[in-house]
Amino acid sequence: MSGSAGGPEVEAALHQVDRLARLALNRLCEPGDLRVAALVAELGAPRLLDALLADRDVAGMLDDVAGRLESHDPERDLERAERRGFRWVVPGDPEWPTSLDDLEAAEPLQRLGRAPLGVWVRGPVRLRDLSDPVAFVGSRSATTYGTDVATDLAARLAHAGCVVVSGAAIGIDEAAHRGALAGDGPTVAVLACGVDRAYPAKHERLLDHLGRHGAIVSEAAPGCAPTRVRFLARNRLIAGLSRGTVVVEAAARSGALNSANWTNRLLRPVMGVPGPVTSATSEGVHELIRTGAATLVTRAAEVLELVGVAGEHLVEERRGPERVRDRLNPKEARVVEAVPVASPAPSDSIARTAGLGVLEVTGVLATLARRGLVEQLPVGWRLADGAAES
Amino acid sequence: MSGSAGGPEVEAALHQVDRLARLALNRLCEPGDLRVAALVAELGAPRLLDALLADRDVAGMLDDVAGRLESHDPERDLERAERRGFRWVVPGDPEWPTSLDDLEAAEPLQRLGRAPLGVWVRGPVRLRDLSDPVAFVGSRSATTYGTDVATDLAARLAHAGCVVVSGAAIGIDEAAHRGALAGDGPTVAVLACGVDRAYPAKHERLLDHLGRHGAIVSEAAPGCAPTRVRFLARNRLIAGLSRGTVVVEAAARSGALNSANWTNRLLRPVMGVPGPVTSATSEGVHELIRTGAATLVTRAAEVLELVGVAGEHLVEERRGPERVRDRLNPKEARVVEAVPVASPAPSDSIARTAGLGVLEVTGVLATLARRGLVEQLPVGWRLADGAAES
Repeated sequence: MSGSAGGPEVEAALHQVDRLARLALNRLCEPGDLRVAALVAELGAPRLLDALLADRDVAGMLDDVAGRLESHDPERDLERAERRGFRWVVPGDPEWPTSLDDLEAAEPLQRLGRAPLGVWVRGPVRLRDLSDPVAFVGSRSATTYGTDVATDLAARLAHAGCVVVSGAAIGIDEAAHRGALAGDGPTVAVLACGVDRAYPAKHERLLDHLGRHGAIVSEAAPGCAPTRVRFLARNRLIAGLSRGTVVVEAAARSGALNSANWTNRLLRPVMGVPGPVTSATSEGVHELIRTGAATLVTRAAEVLELVGVAGEHLVEERRGPERVRDRLNPKEARVVEAVPVASPAPSDSIARTAGLGVLEVTGVLATLARRGLVEQLPVGWRLADGAAES
Repeated sequence: MSGSAGGPEVEAALHQVDRLARLALNRLCEPGDLRVAALVAELGAPRLLDALLADRDVAGMLDDVAGRLESHDPERDLERAERRGFRWVVPGDPEWPTSLDDLEAAEPLQRLGRAPLGVWVRGPVRLRDLSDPVAFVGSRSATTYGTDVATDLAARLAHAGCVVVSGAAIGIDEAAHRGALAGDGPTVAVLACGVDRAYPAKHERLLDHLGRHGAIVSEAAPGCAPTRVRFLARNRLIAGLSRGTVVVEAAARSGALNSANWTNRLLRPVMGVPGPVTSATSEGVHELIRTGAATLVTRAAEVLELVGVAGEHLVEERRGPERVRDRLNPKEARVVEAVPVASPAPSDSIARTAGLGVLEVTGVLATLARRGLVEQLPVGWRLADGAAES
């Protein structure tokens, strides 16, 4: 939107012009096109659109959009979409998720990048209000381990108040959405096709549910088919809409790593859930963690610590069960350390090892035996089973 | 050893005195005792021993060692041990592993630390000549996954020329030794008891084998029983003898983490093999990786890269199988990106999306179809199965 000197009504009118121009340009071009983003930043959406409509070839764009200009009718597109309950959301709209603005500063990936001209939204969840959104990405060929972990993690995060953001693929995406629903949390699917399309077809019911209870988001206009470039552009939206990205299972060079890359470019946390090193579907995740591109996470509290507001979620240090030995006084501890593990020793030998008097040690040994830490055999004392090496 | 002005014979004689004094002190005190280490550094081993023998209470030590002084006879101890084939190795000896000297600079752990006064060695492998030694530590309650991974990793490292260093416990220790033997590599067991003792008893045959083909090392004198303090002190030797430590499975607060801590204090790499997040025996490893105390490793090449001489071992970046798409020219790539994933599109529509001429696109589509990347249906073209999202 170009600068304006008018009052609020003029502002509002100019914003409407900008919204429609963005909708039109979005229909004419492919998502994530850096050239279009640069021209919009330079000229504003309305002027770029006017130039193209006037048959002026701006930076070689006309060739690419010529065919689509024929069916150009943004007012009709918007009206039709709104009748179906879809919202067109652009920067400056109350619903615009400002988290996407960070894409403007992020290093573009290959030929794609920048914030979208706008996004199409279907479903009651408003993008602006997403509470601690966490992206889930991962393999379509997920293992049972992967889908179990994704479902459980998403459910716990949803229960803790996080919105789950994912694609709509089979495997990890599906598991994350189902987990979020099980955790009674809203969930957002970001698609590479129009928000009115069910891809993959087997997720029609899942998408219908999200359309009624969550949100379906796409940069592609309603009716658009999924293409490779739209998948790649979509991945940056998943990253852009979320505070951080959890990768559950991803083979080497998996498409899921693309979303992880975007998250890193946005300087937001990438989190990897490890798996068996014998599983090919965990190779990509392990490589992310190994190279420092992702932080290892194993449970919801660790995710919350990374994506939450500082100090809001604190991970309790993981401790083993408190052990009797933790409550020993220094003298008792010294005696325990002097008691043999295997062959029993008499108390005078233990006393020498501990550097304490025999009488004193005998009393301490009796106390320790009552607590199950040492045991007395005919020939002397030794540590009770399992008390030695841990 | 105190400074000397004499020739080589005097040097050698003084070294013999120092060796025996260290042997005697080692028998009188417990391993890793910081007070003893400090006094030896200040006075030298012979003077400290003389003072104790003369019944002088140096820094309160006399009380602790009084009982053991009665049976004090280092010459006899050494002679008996050597007759059994055990070697007593101290700083300045040709076999002394200088890697242990780093313990002098390491931050002590609790009340333990510093280099040992000397170590007992049994078996043909000489400690000074260990080639790229790698420590394996982990849970005694290892899972099949853990022991399988430890065995395989140790075998591959042994095959690559690394010496495996571990304890002699059941679980990961045992798996590492057996893997190293399978990989035809020497393997070193570091014990908390004397090198002549089999602890645990079920590893008697394994230890016998190591005594004949590898090395068994202990700071405790022959005949000594394992105690908790000796296990803790032993852990620092495992770390000290190795270029890095691999943790395969370790529950939260496992003793294996103690060796990992020592390795970090020595500024050497700690490497963690991840496992399923649903497995309690991997919790400690995951925590090490999560907090940056360990680097995630999944295979031998990654361990070699971390412990090897710089540039000696290079990890090939893990890549998926090369795909047809990797060999596309830019125009082909652009067409592929414009082809829908699900519902086929006619070639003129694909041409518009790609921003290329229809004729040109038709030719490219035919080429791509021959390579199996796209498929032609009656109503148009779409990507072949599986070619879209990855």
